[in-house]
Amino acid sequence: MHSLLTAMYNIARGDDILMIKTGSRDMRGGEKTPEVRLDYERPKRKGISEVIYCPGKSDRQMLSIAQSVRQRKVTMAFSRMSPEQAELVRGDPPIEYDPVSKLGVIKFRDAAPGGVIAVLSAGSSDVPIASEAAAIAELHGCLVKKIFDVGVAGIHRLMSILPEISDADVVIVAAGMDGALPSVVAGLVPGLVIGLPTSVGYGVAAGGHVALNSMLSSCSPGLVVVNIDNGVGAGLSAAIAARHIPA
Amino acid sequence: MHSLLTAMYNIARGDDILMIKTGSRDMRGGEKTPEVRLDYERPKRKGISEVIYCPGKSDRQMLSIAQSVRQRKVTMAFSRMSPEQAELVRGDPPIEYDPVSKLGVIKFRDAAPGGVIAVLSAGSSDVPIASEAAAIAELHGCLVKKIFDVGVAGIHRLMSILPEISDADVVIVAAGMDGALPSVVAGLVPGLVIGLPTSVGYGVAAGGHVALNSMLSSCSPGLVVVNIDNGVGAGLSAAIAARHIPA
Amino acid sequence: MHSLLTAMYNIARGDDILMIKTGSRDMRGGEKTPEVRLDYERPKRKGISEVIYCPGKSDRQMLSIAQSVRQRKVTMAFSRMSPEQAELVRGDPPIEYDPVSKLGVIKFRDAAPGGVIAVLSAGSSDVPIASEAAAIAELHGCLVKKIFDVGVAGIHRLMSILPEISDADVVIVAAGMDGALPSVVAGLVPGLVIGLPTSVGYGVAAGGHVALNSMLSSCSPGLVVVNIDNGVGAGLSAAIAARHIPA
Amino acid sequence: MHSLLTAMYNIARGDDILMIKTGSRDMRGGEKTPEVRLDYERPKRKGISEVIYCPGKSDRQMLSIAQSVRQRKVTMAFSRMSPEQAELVRGDPPIEYDPVSKLGVIKFRDAAPGGVIAVLSAGSSDVPIASEAAAIAELHGCLVKKIFDVGVAGIHRLMSILPEISDADVVIVAAGMDGALPSVVAGLVPGLVIGLPTSVGYGVAAGGHVALNSMLSSCSPGLVVVNIDNGVGAGLSAAIAARHIPA
Amino acid sequence: MHSLLTAMYNIARGDDILMIKTGSRDMRGGEKTPEVRLDYERPKRKGISEVIYCPGKSDRQMLSIAQSVRQRKVTMAFSRMSPEQAELVRGDPPIEYDPVSKLGVIKFRDAAPGGVIAVLSAGSSDVPIASEAAAIAELHGCLVKKIFDVGVAGIHRLMSILPEISDADVVIVAAGMDGALPSVVAGLVPGLVIGLPTSVGYGVAAGGHVALNSMLSSCSPGLVVVNIDNGVGAGLSAAIAARHIPA
Amino acid sequence: MHSLLTAMYNIARGDDILMIKTGSRDMRGGEKTPEVRLDYERPKRKGISEVIYCPGKSDRQMLSIAQSVRQRKVTMAFSRMSPEQAELVRGDPPIEYDPVSKLGVIKFRDAAPGGVIAVLSAGSSDVPIASEAAAIAELHGCLVKKIFDVGVAGIHRLMSILPEISDADVVIVAAGMDGALPSVVAGLVPGLVIGLPTSVGYGVAAGGHVALNSMLSSCSPGLVVVNIDNGVGAGLSAAIAARHIPA
Amino acid sequence: MHSLLTAMYNIARGDDILMIKTGSRDMRGGEKTPEVRLDYERPKRKGISEVIYCPGKSDRQMLSIAQSVRQRKVTMAFSRMSPEQAELVRGDPPIEYDPVSKLGVIKFRDAAPGGVIAVLSAGSSDVPIASEAAAIAELHGCLVKKIFDVGVAGIHRLMSILPEISDADVVIVAAGMDGALPSVVAGLVPGLVIGLPTSVGYGVAAGGHVALNSMLSSCSPGLVVVNIDNGVGAGLSAAIAARHIPA
Amino acid sequence: MHSLLTAMYNIARGDDILMIKTGSRDMRGGEKTPEVRLDYERPKRKGISEVIYCPGKSDRQMLSIAQSVRQRKVTMAFSRMSPEQAELVRGDPPIEYDPVSKLGVIKFRDAAPGGVIAVLSAGSSDVPIASEAAAIAELHGCLVKKIFDVGVAGIHRLMSILPEISDADVVIVAAGMDGALPSVVAGLVPGLVIGLPTSVGYGVAAGGHVALNSMLSSCSPGLVVVNIDNGVGAGLSAAIAARHIPA
Repeated sequence: MHSLLTAMYNIARGDDILMIKTGSRDMRGGEKTPEVRLDYERPKRKGISEVIYCPGKSDRQMLSIAQSVRQRKVTMAFSRMSPEQAELVRGDPPIEYDPVSKLGVIKFRDAAPGGVIAVLSAGSSDVPIASEAAAIAELHGCLVKKIFDVGVAGIHRLMSILPEISDADVVIVAAGMDGALPSVVAGLVPGLVIGLPTSVGYGVAAGGHVALNSMLSSCSPGLVVVNIDNGVGAGLSAAIAARHIPA
Repeated sequence: MHSLLTAMYNIARGDDILMIKTGSRDMRGGEKTPEVRLDYERPKRKGISEVIYCPGKSDRQMLSIAQSVRQRKVTMAFSRMSPEQAELVRGDPPIEYDPVSKLGVIKFRDAAPGGVIAVLSAGSSDVPIASEAAAIAELHGCLVKKIFDVGVAGIHRLMSILPEISDADVVIVAAGMDGALPSVVAGLVPGLVIGLPTSVGYGVAAGGHVALNSMLSSCSPGLVVVNIDNGVGAGLSAAIAARHIPA
Repeated sequence: MHSLLTAMYNIARGDDILMIKTGSRDMRGGEKTPEVRLDYERPKRKGISEVIYCPGKSDRQMLSIAQSVRQRKVTMAFSRMSPEQAELVRGDPPIEYDPVSKLGVIKFRDAAPGGVIAVLSAGSSDVPIASEAAAIAELHGCLVKKIFDVGVAGIHRLMSILPEISDADVVIVAAGMDGALPSVVAGLVPGLVIGLPTSVGYGVAAGGHVALNSMLSSCSPGLVVVNIDNGVGAGLSAAIAARHIPA
Repeated sequence: MHSLLTAMYNIARGDDILMIKTGSRDMRGGEKTPEVRLDYERPKRKGISEVIYCPGKSDRQMLSIAQSVRQRKVTMAFSRMSPEQAELVRGDPPIEYDPVSKLGVIKFRDAAPGGVIAVLSAGSSDVPIASEAAAIAELHGCLVKKIFDVGVAGIHRLMSILPEISDADVVIVAAGMDGALPSVVAGLVPGLVIGLPTSVGYGVAAGGHVALNSMLSSCSPGLVVVNIDNGVGAGLSAAIAARHIPA
Repeated sequence: MHSLLTAMYNIARGDDILMIKTGSRDMRGGEKTPEVRLDYERPKRKGISEVIYCPGKSDRQMLSIAQSVRQRKVTMAFSRMSPEQAELVRGDPPIEYDPVSKLGVIKFRDAAPGGVIAVLSAGSSDVPIASEAAAIAELHGCLVKKIFDVGVAGIHRLMSILPEISDADVVIVAAGMDGALPSVVAGLVPGLVIGLPTSVGYGVAAGGHVALNSMLSSCSPGLVVVNIDNGVGAGLSAAIAARHIPA
Repeated sequence: MHSLLTAMYNIARGDDILMIKTGSRDMRGGEKTPEVRLDYERPKRKGISEVIYCPGKSDRQMLSIAQSVRQRKVTMAFSRMSPEQAELVRGDPPIEYDPVSKLGVIKFRDAAPGGVIAVLSAGSSDVPIASEAAAIAELHGCLVKKIFDVGVAGIHRLMSILPEISDADVVIVAAGMDGALPSVVAGLVPGLVIGLPTSVGYGVAAGGHVALNSMLSSCSPGLVVVNIDNGVGAGLSAAIAARHIPA
Repeated sequence: MHSLLTAMYNIARGDDILMIKTGSRDMRGGEKTPEVRLDYERPKRKGISEVIYCPGKSDRQMLSIAQSVRQRKVTMAFSRMSPEQAELVRGDPPIEYDPVSKLGVIKFRDAAPGGVIAVLSAGSSDVPIASEAAAIAELHGCLVKKIFDVGVAGIHRLMSILPEISDADVVIVAAGMDGALPSVVAGLVPGLVIGLPTSVGYGVAAGGHVALNSMLSSCSPGLVVVNIDNGVGAGLSAAIAARHIPA
Repeated sequence: MHSLLTAMYNIARGDDILMIKTGSRDMRGGEKTPEVRLDYERPKRKGISEVIYCPGKSDRQMLSIAQSVRQRKVTMAFSRMSPEQAELVRGDPPIEYDPVSKLGVIKFRDAAPGGVIAVLSAGSSDVPIASEAAAIAELHGCLVKKIFDVGVAGIHRLMSILPEISDADVVIVAAGMDGALPSVVAGLVPGLVIGLPTSVGYGVAAGGHVALNSMLSSCSPGLVVVNIDNGVGAGLSAAIAARHIPA
């Protein structure tokens, strides 16, 4: 093995990775292959919790992860969690579950206080994704203001809430359809604006690609973007941008 | 807050926006965030009713909206409404519901008489979307002529109905598949033609993008286009184009 | 020949179509095939002039068309005309040529007075396409107000020109990049809004598809759309929508 | 080597394939690798000539091919040939070259009489591609009628030429932009219709994909399609469809 | 009304179009709008039957069409018909229904003898679409040979059936995935080849677009293409191409 | 028939192709058309087993194939097999079925020992596709190491398993979402790397096209790619690349 | 005019917008329409300078803007500026121009000290875009570290510069091709990571869409994205995110 | 800095990376930022040479790289090199440059003997890309057989060269247009097949995406794919797959 690889291996082999052996046995029998490796180093490296993406996880995987989390006493969030999955992993401490944002949390201690985040939605159909972003930011200690259904078809709705967003460190703007709201907001407020496109729409807007591309194409300064329906990513990025980085 | 923002806020805060607090409570408890803001100023600004897009609305949201509409005595339309949603919001005045166009209306007074609109469909599968456009135009006082299944594969079908469309202020042409009918119609009649692409089709035509792009690419003059399956938009635009704008 | 075809042929063979024989001779020699058929019936059917799309036309074709137009004494517009082509077809009456919009006109009589059209552009790069739309509307008798560089990145620019657009019969809004301006305008003004996407942009916005799709996806009522960079189509549609259709 | 491969090799190794060694020498020197293998069996298998696609061919390749063709005394066509390439391969018999369709032909004997083919174009910009299809069909003995600029924006132009196309064995219809003409034609005439999309267009129509997809999506019966700008393919298919297949 | 429109109307108004009034009543009550116009002139103009596309048709529409067809004693085919729809329209004469191709036929007289058509499929999953094409060609009097599962991954399978396809007037080749089979076939046989792409595939091949584009891009001469899964179109085009056109 | 075709036919007609006549009878009755042609020559030509793709196969087809396989005593794999299909074709020898990879195998003899293959997955959702690749490679005699959930978001996870992959002949790397893992692996290990994109992802990553394109665009040397979710293809290619080709 | 519009107009009409009348005169003569409206309020609202996008600007526009900027004594940046344009607007104070990033600056006073920004590039071809981002961030007072050519094909290059990026407030990562570098970086460092896709690439990577989509699809937390080649947007967003927002 | 990052840095900082300081000076003056980092460890880790992609490299960068390569006495290849760039870096040892494949090589010692590689092209236009793959494989010691213009439109051309490819360790198949040749080849030969799509084509085939997708969709076993026009990648992967991996 080349010396670089050997050196890299020597660093990592002692690292804090939890392997969960829920995998199926192969055809020749033998031991099961671990299917999940939890990254318990993430809070130390990045200052944020790992978030488990739940769709497609088997019951056995969910149970093993919850058990490990509770043994290690680390705070862990679960995104796009079904009510059945939330029921499955109930225990002590309990899982807090919100059916609108489909986010579950097993929490051991409160996060240090973070920045001020405003979370806007253009329409009422964008509320679930906007709520996911808001809940993730709150989990990381941010003070979050949620303001929904202020899209550009009636722009006075946006004007009526300007004081609530003009002093936020970061403004997350969830929008589907034409995705025009983040452009207008980023032209007005001084903080960083994170465009959060949603898959709300039909015809050419189906799936959220128009909203995404519209945000990427904006001329307004200070507007960055995450993937369609990625409320978790918007919330984590807002929490990171709004804190003071320790040198 | 920058002076522009302050001034914009001062205008809008007294404005007529109805906030409906149906939102879920957040993790820290506290008050619910309003999820819907109705734009009761729209009829005054634009001269047309707001149309509620129903898919994804919760029962609680639907009931709150209907209650508010009846209290304020404003006419309101509901698009892509399921029969169950129409049943849910029955009351006084009753909701008029058409299962083909999936449009519901709670009406308080008749609109002022509008222009003459012809609504064509290329195939029989385009009838639901064409009907939605027709019903919206009728709601705004237009005299509407509906003529279905006159696509270009048998062009004498179009020829046989020419007198009915040659004196219309606006002709809406709904078409899926190759979307060729609006091009032919716009080459013949004097009024504005609104191409209304539908998602009818399979293979390359699936989803309606070919119909949409075909209409956008037409060489025929006086042809404008709306989003795929956007019968509401076609109907509203036709009603606006066919009325006399007050200075 | 089937009776329908025979009857259709009998109508059309006496019609007013000018064939211009500029085509190349085929391999077996023989007479040249006509390459251009001018539609001198269009003003009578549609109430508007034919517009010649100049890119790719040979000098011989351009000269033949100009000669025919001057003999017949019909007004004719030429779009995307190069300065060289404008120079080529000079004569009596002269061709009026604007190098920004690249539109040329040979005019024989003024059009009847039409409606009031406002033409907006989001950026200064959208000016050529916006100017093309404006010139076509003026040619058909409209009173046109041109207002440029009022995009949503600084929305007070739009607010400062609201009186100029609130009484227009039709507002044409040219925009590239994110194409967000038509959505905001259509939420405010009572007249029909025609979204005119331009190919201005880079990255995901290159070619104008984001601007087009953003306009098609708008929730604002009364917004219709034409093809990317189709200033001629926007201008003709506005002129048609703003006139009173004779019954 | 597996027995199937051995058997296949034994068939083919004696076959009539001409290898032209114009390739560059490799780094280790040695003999040049042949770069072109002419398929002189094609006329026998398929009843049609091979057509050389000229773009990108080196002068040395062009000269070698022309020399071989003249030695073997086989008729050969050259598509998308530049005037410089046509000049390069002049000789005896001469190459017949048409600058509009960019087709060159070295001919040794006339083809047997074929069927009747009508070649239509929707616009005057589609003439070069339509001409390519027409010339290829003529080369294979067909009687070809060329009728240009009869697009659907003025549908009486199509009606005026119906007798010329109603008795054709095959009708080729070249169209760019919205590609609507083949749909209308295929709804009227009894013969096979070959849609030939062209790359003429701008905005969403740029490159010819809308025209192609529109033709593929047509409801009209008896309409088949070839690749964008593939005049050679349309002409060859028409010639094949219009001849009587020997049992 | 312009004279051209008047003349076109006069031709078409006496034409044989059957209007079926199954449409819903509009909001203002009044008479129902016809939703279906059957084109009983098509056999005379085109020499082929109309084919009813069944998905989305209501029971009332299906029954009305079947009743009309039996009264007029015209042969009619029904594509993508569900077993329930076939059961619904049973009567006298009975509907012949094939559950693999999902084609139903109410037949009154046999078609005149047509040409020889070979129908190939690349895989066994392409059989339903290939069968639809075969049944439509048989309905129009063709002698059809069906040969399935001869894709290029094992090219000796194709070689073993060469005699069956080398004397066909037209060869229809159904293929999904990479769509490579039509290219190979068109390089070998003398007849017209119709590529029939199917939606069979996964990953980049999902939906059939790769198969379609591969066929369109082929260098093999005499290959034309229809829309994905359009077995009806392939069958009708083959029947038309294989008959002798009466002058 | 042209001599080439005759010769090709003579080779192939005696070849070992099993036709399974499960097809439906056509409308005119007559014998059923075979729908499946098994390629029993493949192991001899290619040195690998045929793999039956099960989705869409009828019960009758599945039973016929299993019966034929057991009679001929050839090893056969079945991909994307449902548990119901596995149950259906049980017999002697039994079918070995793995519900995670959805692969079934009827095996008659062990393969000759092959190379060393490492199969990695970036996430736990990629495990089913990675397992399919692993099982196929094992079936062909390879020694397979499975290592899951080592994506780049926590790159120390990859570093901790470097010794296990640095001596593999071939490394298969399954990844959805951004598909970045194969690039990093191919920059480090000496063996051939096969990128196996999966359809795991949402937003722009939905369907696996981003993962595929990311792998294709990598600058790392020695990285080749297969279709999205094509675990069978990755496993077969790895087995072929890792064996010694007999001259 | 509706009261909302009147109120909005009253706010904005006194605002600080500079109109530059460089537009062409229209056909009817009259005054020129202003083509550029500079947003001198932006520094006050947003705390950042306006950046003029130079491609397509006429010489007259460039000169007018430079003159106005120098009169008002505001700092202004010019992006994608050609050397000729930089030469054109030389004056006092001089324009500082960098030919690699194509950025020009007319500066009147230094910005207040901002945060620490690291700017990485994956390849050497990404340097111009990365340099544009770096220069914009420096202009706004940030301390910028530039580190180029550290892509994942040789991941030890990234490892060797980890100390330089682990204490940055924001890390901008420019990458074309597969865009994999930002994913790896965002998995390691604590600060916000801004993915800056570039149009560097060929084949599927041409134009930068793969790099963009790869970044959007990343599982790494704290990664946000801007449009392809949008160095200005990345630099401005980094500067905003790295400063302390005044309440 | 987190301990993992510190450890990773400690490994890499002593590694063999050459930084070439050709970058422009930043606005504040100071030292130039290195723009190129050569990966001299690659031969040791991967067993293959680094290949410099030349488009966009400045003269100064090219000269610096060539000087460093000659000082270190490492073999280096330069892809897509212009004749001017090859002239620029002439020296001792000389650069070997092939104008067809546009590959240049500065070589210090011959590679160890590698495997047997066959390189096929479907058409004569695919020769440059096929030659690039062949030259890279030769550089790494492989015995390469080049066979051009054997596409499926005349499949006997492929049959005639079967013995030359049936014993190759790896067969590279370059194809544009429909990309069908690799499918047929992979169905016949026992070795690994690498599909190398080229950008040769027009209409839907333009840019090579159809060829790429066709190869990815193939049912033939043992076929893997690289990016469009990526001859370097195909050649390197073939060389790696054809050598014996040392344990």
